[in-house]
Amino acid sequence: MTTDGTGVPEGPLHGLRVLDLSRVLAGPYCTMILADLGATVIKVEHPDGGDEARGFLPMIDGASAYFAAVNRGKRSIALDLAADADRAIFQRLLAQADVLVENFRPGVMDRLGFGWPVLQARWPRLVVASISGFGQHGPYRERGAYDLIVQAMSGMMSLTGHPGQPPTRAGTSIGDLAASVFAANGIQAALLRRVRTGIGGRVDVAMLDCQVALLENAIARCLVDGQAPPPLGARHSGAAPFDAFRAADGWLVIAAGNDALFARLAQMLASPQWLADERFASRSARVAHQAALKALIEERLTTADVADWLPRLEQTGVPAGPIQDVAAVLNDPQLAARGLLAPVQGTALLAAHTPIRLDDTPWPTTLPPAPALDEHRAEILRLLDEGDTPR
Amino acid sequence: MTTDGTGVPEGPLHGLRVLDLSRVLAGPYCTMILADLGATVIKVEHPDGGDEARGFLPMIDGASAYFAAVNRGKRSIALDLAADADRAIFQRLLAQADVLVENFRPGVMDRLGFGWPVLQARWPRLVVASISGFGQHGPYRERGAYDLIVQAMSGMMSLTGHPGQPPTRAGTSIGDLAASVFAANGIQAALLRRVRTGIGGRVDVAMLDCQVALLENAIARCLVDGQAPPPLGARHSGAAPFDAFRAADGWLVIAAGNDALFARLAQMLASPQWLADERFASRSARVAHQAALKALIEERLTTADVADWLPRLEQTGVPAGPIQDVAAVLNDPQLAARGLLAPVQGTALLAAHTPIRLDDTPWPTTLPPAPALDEHRAEILRLLDEGDTPR
Repeated sequence: MTTDGTGVPEGPLHGLRVLDLSRVLAGPYCTMILADLGATVIKVEHPDGGDEARGFLPMIDGASAYFAAVNRGKRSIALDLAADADRAIFQRLLAQADVLVENFRPGVMDRLGFGWPVLQARWPRLVVASISGFGQHGPYRERGAYDLIVQAMSGMMSLTGHPGQPPTRAGTSIGDLAASVFAANGIQAALLRRVRTGIGGRVDVAMLDCQVALLENAIARCLVDGQAPPPLGARHSGAAPFDAFRAADGWLVIAAGNDALFARLAQMLASPQWLADERFASRSARVAHQAALKALIEERLTTADVADWLPRLEQTGVPAGPIQDVAAVLNDPQLAARGLLAPVQGTALLAAHTPIRLDDTPWPTTLPPAPALDEHRAEILRLLDEGDTPR
Repeated sequence: MTTDGTGVPEGPLHGLRVLDLSRVLAGPYCTMILADLGATVIKVEHPDGGDEARGFLPMIDGASAYFAAVNRGKRSIALDLAADADRAIFQRLLAQADVLVENFRPGVMDRLGFGWPVLQARWPRLVVASISGFGQHGPYRERGAYDLIVQAMSGMMSLTGHPGQPPTRAGTSIGDLAASVFAANGIQAALLRRVRTGIGGRVDVAMLDCQVALLENAIARCLVDGQAPPPLGARHSGAAPFDAFRAADGWLVIAAGNDALFARLAQMLASPQWLADERFASRSARVAHQAALKALIEERLTTADVADWLPRLEQTGVPAGPIQDVAAVLNDPQLAARGLLAPVQGTALLAAHTPIRLDDTPWPTTLPPAPALDEHRAEILRLLDEGDTPR
């Protein structure tokens, strides 16, 4: 959906103006989604170095690849919100904005003089989104939160990994990113409401809330069992065989949770006797005896390599797949056919498009560059002076 | 945002009509978000048992808690889309719908006679969202996908867990749920575009694409290092100390990645000598020597319990937290203050609200029940006959 000047149709949020005070990840990934969907995003950064993620590893050609991936397609203006002249510019930008996104700790915007009551009174059509670790209310509101902390406190880490092993987080910052994607939903919902009512609103998204909202059936399992669910490794809580299995040269995953798929798997592995085995006679029986079943399956699978098994599983219609590392992902034929990964213009970096395809239109073959600090100051000020709006 | 008849304001998507053909998780969680935001969601189920998740464990009072959590607040009508009379009803519903959501394998909607070209031609204002494992195009499009398979193929599993241990998935079905949350964004973006253009659109979201889009900086690290990044356990790739650490009676997490936070931590742990140690003199030096640093930190932390350390870390201003299991999450004071978890009416189940707070309005104290199969048939048909629309 990103427009890259190559004739790709304008995105669905074309014309929408987003002021972005956010830093690092949870806020910037939210406004990246909005920018990829066609909105104009003006990143307002502190003149003293700007978004600290500009210094985050890894670097490519001397610039942060971390920053470039998440801030592509945005414009940058450096403003010191404690200085009168810059505050005046910021207020003129606010007057033209549809959305303001910030991820300071709760209270910072109030101290800057731009708290929600002030913004609401002066610019009632504005949608203000605040993304924070714990939310705008509650005993932990002023605490700092990082991905690791919300993965730990939300229960996510307690469900991840193998029993008896040291704790592990999910291998990507879903503590931040889930909040980003929910916040983008909240912003769009508030904009749709504004179409009806003419009034903006305040979106309050907490990283901790978002992780808990993604616990799926773990809360229900905890209530039913009367005790906290343990980590399951790669297993499923309510289906088997549904796990990672060893082949001769590595691991693969098989998801054959129902009776029909299990029967196909047993036939393919030349083990029809499993189907007559009481331990495996139903879904719940297989879950109860999943360790024994896994051992039997691995006894077969370790006779050949992953690359031998995957096409056979596919032919049999048993859902399965390789456990790919990131290097393999970069060469995955399905992702290539989808065009999901694209180079960021002017860099050696590949990044993923926001994964929303619209109207069967292919994604652009490149992603726009991230801005240098204050790169668009002149253009933004000129357009403000002309009474026009940067789009 | 859910309206529960207790005077809570209508949600931002009030008046929006969503037809929901989806089953199990990725589709239903998407329409749950839309319902929680105020949309009317009509779940169209097959008369032969309906959504198979109605049978999924865990059960509470004989009904699937899994199903109830994700389908709260929706209405149900049973229609056989292969039968003429039911097809006619479905077409009348389509004529009044704003959004159609489905998560069949690609091709199924076409075979039912409701493929995108047909829908687009006949109901041009309709937004059609298709959620699938691999997307509507590409060599894997017809393959079945489950959460486990997309976590494996996307690289997510390769980044999760500890090196040398068997593979592990993230402990919740983020392969499904990420697709749900992105799809809700795509639907809302298409609706905002429709406000400008009067035309609907087709949203194509693939579970695999979504997982890859959440890999954060792993793609950049792979490109820079020339090799796939390994799993890091609870560690951070570019900051230390930023990990899970052992205390006397268990684990806690500390996120003290920058120099200032590290200095505070060293002082609090009575180890100012760490600040004069070349191995720990900078962020990158600490990352290079994180194992040695971790051993020193744990030497201190194992002298007291988690509950002793956490308030001291908080007073010192070092971001930290407990690794809570799901039972602890149910009693977390911040989540309680936020009101994130609420009982589903008529059940003993607690579930999380969609984590988007609007206008500082507290969430309702209960969540609406999920429908029985075909529960709303009479009401839906009556309203259709009256030329009215179920809201």
